Amino acid sequence: MPAAPLRLGLAGLGTVGIGVVKIVQAEADLIAARTGRRVVITAVSARDRSKNRDADLSGYAWEADPVALARRDDIDVFVEVMGGHDGPAKASTEAAIAAGKDVVTANKALLAHHGQALAEAAEAAGRVIRFEAAVAGGIPVIKVLTEGLAGNRIKRVMGVMNGTCNYILTRMQSAGLPYDQVFEEARQLGYLEADPNLDVGGIDAGHKLSLLAAIAFGTRVSFDQVELEGIGSVSIDDIRLAEDMGYRIKLLGVAQMTGRGLEQRMTPCLVPIASPLGQLQGGTNMVVLEGDSVGQIVMRGAGAGMGPTASAVMGDVIDLARGLRIATFGIPASALVEAQPARAATPAPYYLRMTLLDKPGALAKIATCLGDAGVSIDQMRQYGHEGAKAPVLIVTHKAAPDDVAHALTRFAATGVLVGDPVAIRIEEV
Amino acid sequence: MPAAPLRLGLAGLGTVGIGVVKIVQAEADLIAARTGRRVVITAVSARDRSKNRDADLSGYAWEADPVALARRDDIDVFVEVMGGHDGPAKASTEAAIAAGKDVVTANKALLAHHGQALAEAAEAAGRVIRFEAAVAGGIPVIKVLTEGLAGNRIKRVMGVMNGTCNYILTRMQSAGLPYDQVFEEARQLGYLEADPNLDVGGIDAGHKLSLLAAIAFGTRVSFDQVELEGIGSVSIDDIRLAEDMGYRIKLLGVAQMTGRGLEQRMTPCLVPIASPLGQLQGGTNMVVLEGDSVGQIVMRGAGAGMGPTASAVMGDVIDLARGLRIATFGIPASALVEAQPARAATPAPYYLRMTLLDKPGALAKIATCLGDAGVSIDQMRQYGHEGAKAPVLIVTHKAAPDDVAHALTRFAATGVLVGDPVAIRIEEV
Repeated sequence: MPAAPLRLGLAGLGTVGIGVVKIVQAEADLIAARTGRRVVITAVSARDRSKNRDADLSGYAWEADPVALARRDDIDVFVEVMGGHDGPAKASTEAAIAAGKDVVTANKALLAHHGQALAEAAEAAGRVIRFEAAVAGGIPVIKVLTEGLAGNRIKRVMGVMNGTCNYILTRMQSAGLPYDQVFEEARQLGYLEADPNLDVGGIDAGHKLSLLAAIAFGTRVSFDQVELEGIGSVSIDDIRLAEDMGYRIKLLGVAQMTGRGLEQRMTPCLVPIASPLGQLQGGTNMVVLEGDSVGQIVMRGAGAGMGPTASAVMGDVIDLARGLRIATFGIPASALVEAQPARAATPAPYYLRMTLLDKPGALAKIATCLGDAGVSIDQMRQYGHEGAKAPVLIVTHKAAPDDVAHALTRFAATGVLVGDPVAIRIEEV
Repeated sequence: MPAAPLRLGLAGLGTVGIGVVKIVQAEADLIAARTGRRVVITAVSARDRSKNRDADLSGYAWEADPVALARRDDIDVFVEVMGGHDGPAKASTEAAIAAGKDVVTANKALLAHHGQALAEAAEAAGRVIRFEAAVAGGIPVIKVLTEGLAGNRIKRVMGVMNGTCNYILTRMQSAGLPYDQVFEEARQLGYLEADPNLDVGGIDAGHKLSLLAAIAFGTRVSFDQVELEGIGSVSIDDIRLAEDMGYRIKLLGVAQMTGRGLEQRMTPCLVPIASPLGQLQGGTNMVVLEGDSVGQIVMRGAGAGMGPTASAVMGDVIDLARGLRIATFGIPASALVEAQPARAATPAPYYLRMTLLDKPGALAKIATCLGDAGVSIDQMRQYGHEGAKAPVLIVTHKAAPDDVAHALTRFAATGVLVGDPVAIRIEEV
């Protein structure tokens, strides 16, 4: 007797949802061969039924309300690709769990805000939540981290996980254009979320980082403790000067467990041009996982788009069809510990850029501030004078972030700086 | 009541085996948290009991014969890290399956030669064979291909999967040294297998490719159909000249399903310097997976060594402890089809190097041979004369491999060539 089909209820018929429909329809036989059972869509839901969509939905029941879809008796898995961290996405996911359905979601915001509660609810109901599509699009990083590297104590997780930000930064670099102009280009190309701050403010990428950190370190998702800094303040000057010194600027997420607690940051960082992260151009994503046994694993792929995101959703669906079921964040939700947040305290080299008044002794005053703060200089470059102002570039040796902050504070008192100095962390990759 | 422990029988106490012992001992609690049960080693086996090993084995029963280990009642999983495609590895793996044990193996040669029979035996016995450690060391590529990308029709699989070959090629390139000298260095550093042809002849990497191809295309493992060419004939001249033209030479595995059948090749290829494969230096491995939905996924990591390989073994062990069980090659062994082998017929640009007698019309004769064979020229460079001999470099437009071979045959009849021409495929990555 063939196994019963796995029946999906699909909430959301945007790009990702239609991508899922296309795979389910086109690859029915392939999926059946791989799972031993049919995977079918029973019912769908979206805001606007009348919208013209590039897929044949005539065989599916329609639910105007995703909560009603989630509760249908004729679905086994609730696939949530609507987005939004509250409202219908949250209500319908909760309803699905309460009704005894497994959940596959692409919704990073939902899990970043409510992951703990949802994971607990799912486990209490004997159900699982899968979210490969929520992080780094088509790259199966959740599976690799949770399963493939499960024999490792994870040391650090890094990632460029917002394609729009990486597009903007690499376009600034390659075309020599200022942020505002490239931001406008990206908006016109439709690369930005309705609220662009989700992208350029680092929030979307921060959501993803917080999910990886939970798995990596067995901690409760703590998005509110991610140190967030967007790319809006990255200047074309810094992109150019960093390149001169052998670095590129990336919106880089880093999560690591330290003696002082869990560091999570999503901030602009410098990385060496020759490194895999430095080589990453355009909208592509990259995740770097470091384990005590495996060393460094680098994964690169499309971070968004219909095909890649649908591929990730279907990876989760196929796992469920095959009976592969594990806890949402890799260990039981009740065993996840509250992480002590550690504000970025791991020492690193820093890139400093400042403009000095062209006065005798100005540079000495800056050097003294650094020395007094315990920050030592690795490289220093003074560029050709612009009128009376001399731009100065410094790369420090490894320094504690607090010491760098102290030095910057002391700079202000010297009276030799024009404008504010720029300090960007150089992440060792 | 806590779940019963998962009991391992470990056959092989070389680098990888001791790596497994270390993880099982050091991370017992972490593994128990992640799997919900203890993972323990019950008994071990190796050729020489008296050898001093960097691990405490006193708590484990000793079996001189791995077949006896495989049959012990007090093990659930037989972990085979001895190596060798026949002899004790094969006998003990068969014995383990017959005795109802699951198998975790790092043995690419065993599976490349006997994968189909072993997979059938395992399925008949209701057991699974896992082999993450057999391909690309610490990179969890088997899991990604079999599970993470299971929603995709795989288009092409590529990989640099023998770290020793990549070490030799990158060392030749960076130090400007000839093959023989770097080969000797590698031997002295202990990088080579006892039979170096396994490495430099491409056999080891070919084994790995044949396993990936089976999963990717649902075909029976057909290692004997892999087009194999080692790196012994790669000259420092070609490395230098390719670099001049923007390429690097890699021992690159490529598997793809074409209209004519399954292409599998493990041969020296040119790849663009700026590509991830072109940037891969030293002993690191890289695998590129291309799916119809996901696009291109690139994975990079250590391809060998105690920690990375043991990490892969433990990933498989932890899957079993968690109850994650799927068919050896992703679909039932009986459903794997016999692939029609297609000798590399996918057109590609080719790099050609030859030395011409410095005679009027020599170059015209070569160009005519190419034209007559249907091969058109994209770039041509003639280097400074060496006495009466003129080295010529040609990059062709995309050409069928057979057409290139015809052109090379015609070259011989022109009488203007000194020595044999070199032709290396430029793989589009």
